[in-house]
Amino acid sequence: MIYLTRRERFNAAHRLFIEEWDDTKNFEVFGKCSNPNWHGHNYELFVTVKGNLNPKTGFVVNLKVLSKIIREHIISKVDHKNLNLDVPFMQGKITSTENVAIAFWEVLAPFINELNCELHCIKVAETENNYIEYYGK
Amino acid sequence: MIYLTRRERFNAAHRLFIEEWDDTKNFEVFGKCSNPNWHGHNYELFVTVKGNLNPKTGFVVNLKVLSKIIREHIISKVDHKNLNLDVPFMQGKITSTENVAIAFWEVLAPFINELNCELHCIKVAETENNYIEYYGK
Amino acid sequence: MIYLTRRERFNAAHRLFIEEWDDTKNFEVFGKCSNPNWHGHNYELFVTVKGNLNPKTGFVVNLKVLSKIIREHIISKVDHKNLNLDVPFMQGKITSTENVAIAFWEVLAPFINELNCELHCIKVAETENNYIEYYGK
Amino acid sequence: MIYLTRRERFNAAHRLFIEEWDDTKNFEVFGKCSNPNWHGHNYELFVTVKGNLNPKTGFVVNLKVLSKIIREHIISKVDHKNLNLDVPFMQGKITSTENVAIAFWEVLAPFINELNCELHCIKVAETENNYIEYYGK
Amino acid sequence: MIYLTRRERFNAAHRLFIEEWDDTKNFEVFGKCSNPNWHGHNYELFVTVKGNLNPKTGFVVNLKVLSKIIREHIISKVDHKNLNLDVPFMQGKITSTENVAIAFWEVLAPFINELNCELHCIKVAETENNYIEYYGK
Amino acid sequence: MIYLTRRERFNAAHRLFIEEWDDTKNFEVFGKCSNPNWHGHNYELFVTVKGNLNPKTGFVVNLKVLSKIIREHIISKVDHKNLNLDVPFMQGKITSTENVAIAFWEVLAPFINELNCELHCIKVAETENNYIEYYGK
Repeated sequence: MIYLTRRERFNAAHRLFIEEWDDTKNFEVFGKCSNPNWHGHNYELFVTVKGNLNPKTGFVVNLKVLSKIIREHIISKVDHKNLNLDVPFMQGKITSTENVAIAFWEVLAPFINELNCELHCIKVAETENNYIEYYGK
Repeated sequence: MIYLTRRERFNAAHRLFIEEWDDTKNFEVFGKCSNPNWHGHNYELFVTVKGNLNPKTGFVVNLKVLSKIIREHIISKVDHKNLNLDVPFMQGKITSTENVAIAFWEVLAPFINELNCELHCIKVAETENNYIEYYGK
Repeated sequence: MIYLTRRERFNAAHRLFIEEWDDTKNFEVFGKCSNPNWHGHNYELFVTVKGNLNPKTGFVVNLKVLSKIIREHIISKVDHKNLNLDVPFMQGKITSTENVAIAFWEVLAPFINELNCELHCIKVAETENNYIEYYGK
Repeated sequence: MIYLTRRERFNAAHRLFIEEWDDTKNFEVFGKCSNPNWHGHNYELFVTVKGNLNPKTGFVVNLKVLSKIIREHIISKVDHKNLNLDVPFMQGKITSTENVAIAFWEVLAPFINELNCELHCIKVAETENNYIEYYGK
Repeated sequence: MIYLTRRERFNAAHRLFIEEWDDTKNFEVFGKCSNPNWHGHNYELFVTVKGNLNPKTGFVVNLKVLSKIIREHIISKVDHKNLNLDVPFMQGKITSTENVAIAFWEVLAPFINELNCELHCIKVAETENNYIEYYGK
Repeated sequence: MIYLTRRERFNAAHRLFIEEWDDTKNFEVFGKCSNPNWHGHNYELFVTVKGNLNPKTGFVVNLKVLSKIIREHIISKVDHKNLNLDVPFMQGKITSTENVAIAFWEVLAPFINELNCELHCIKVAETENNYIEYYGK
């Protein structure tokens, strides 16, 4: 079993808030992340897959294929977007890094499982000081 | 003459667009940076000052003092904000990294010139691949 | 189950040595890390907690709360200190990165367990080339 | 159980290709990595070992000893070399990062097992966007 | 006057040697960089241009245009190549980082001067410990 | 004229204080950097030299030679040392990063001027947020 990780990056705006709460309550829980006019990040996404070595190619998975899947199904949907307003798979969800990571898992897992390997971990870093890891359960 | 640099960081949303242009024209010039619902970045700000050594303290400037000025006059105004909507000194300007760096210079220079040293350079990095440097003229 | 990591940093002096050994023996085992006049590092601390998502907030844990606990119980005790002389929870211990990581675990675990999540890993990096990970057992 | 990681670096040339395939077929599978005149990387190698704390020294393993093993048995064989042509333990293998990591494991495991600890993970990063982790099975 | 920098990366093989010298003499001067079977690097290229602000767009230069020029005239020629064998503008030159930086300047300057700005600096980093800067004279 | 930079690293303890001041006064000016039991850093040193290209070798200066000079005259004196107590060329000086950079310049300049190139800049980074640059006047 070998683990391969691909990093991709995207720049997005977002806001943490609960619609039924007023601004004061949202600020109490989410702090300045609840700013009504949005803020944003240079997100880093690390996709780790695991599988057996293909003895012919020496690959778990062809990186070009993996990168194409991530760009097509994730990066093109979130890069230079507003995570709350522009991203179909985040609709109705709080755009915490936790929820972003879980949503990315749900989008990517079916495509990666067709590649003769398995999605192992989604890691999303919001800043150089904070990141989330999700293993699918 | 000694040069001292302090890095501070902030996370902000923004959008590049010219109001009198329609979305197609804006997209032609600014690409995905013109997304109407905003996007955002983890900006890095490097403030470089120059001056003579204070022979008593061995300092050009006390870093705590410099950092306090940057946080009070820049970071508190832009961190977790929308550069187009929330920042008084960016009003009416295109929020290109170029204009952000020039505006930061104009805000900081008077405060730094009171410190017995001189503002030398404002560097603003938008992503790991792009940055602007401005020397005040 | 979601894993969230928070990075904090501190700058400290320390020395590796065993009191009952003379300088030659200490140098043999600990090399230049046994310098009697101390040396120091920019340490990086990564605290990883795991837990279930709070469906209301989309958080495993509120980062502001986690960061406050780490700063209050660790960073304020070790930053700009001497790990051998100034830090109560390192008294009588060799200040190897291994022991530092274990001590941080013991300090933090009770506070984190009150947060509806669990401490998963303490990672301490001494330089860009060396780090320790401890999972509590 | 404590986990300790040591990073070492090396600069090497390599090429991905299957001898029985022609250039077109190799390019189809391996892309520009199949360039017949080679290309190269600044590889990063992270060796993670696990073991119990030596209560006397506070060490899982003496970093100087671990580093010496890695330099003697890996770095001196691959640094400023061609992974396809110059490295005995890569002979007859495709020099994918996967195969490099597995080969490093096989070389290092016996030496590390003599140190009163166990090899836990070999991580090899080819670029800032791609890395492989191997846990020995 | 504003300075804008764009980073691009490429992975290449090379070798430092003087043809009329034998291997021993080459090794004496160039050390392991003279390995006859090549070695390689993840190079980082930083292109800095300077110019006046376009008051309409807030840009010194459109980053998309600058990036396209660098990719078309440099990256596509050197990425996943052998700098000694595959790169027309390095023919007959020692592939030291110094010569690489000068050659990049000569290739890029004419294209950048058509952009209403000026090439200011070419910086090429070979490893995290070494880099060259060239200002065109 | 070409500029070449070499990075070297060292880990050292230090303390900022003026002997004739009491602890309260020292704390007022130097903050927690005045801790009587020392603290420390992973310092990064960037030595930039400038000169003409040697047309035979394609070098401004042989990196191995430059690195040897820096290690012999700086790193071996400061690595795993106390900058206040162990370093002859810092005796009687406040160990601010400013003074450290100036002292390094004075030590290195004569050796580098013998190399057919000139010392251009000494940059010393104390943390990821602070650094000093000195150009010799």
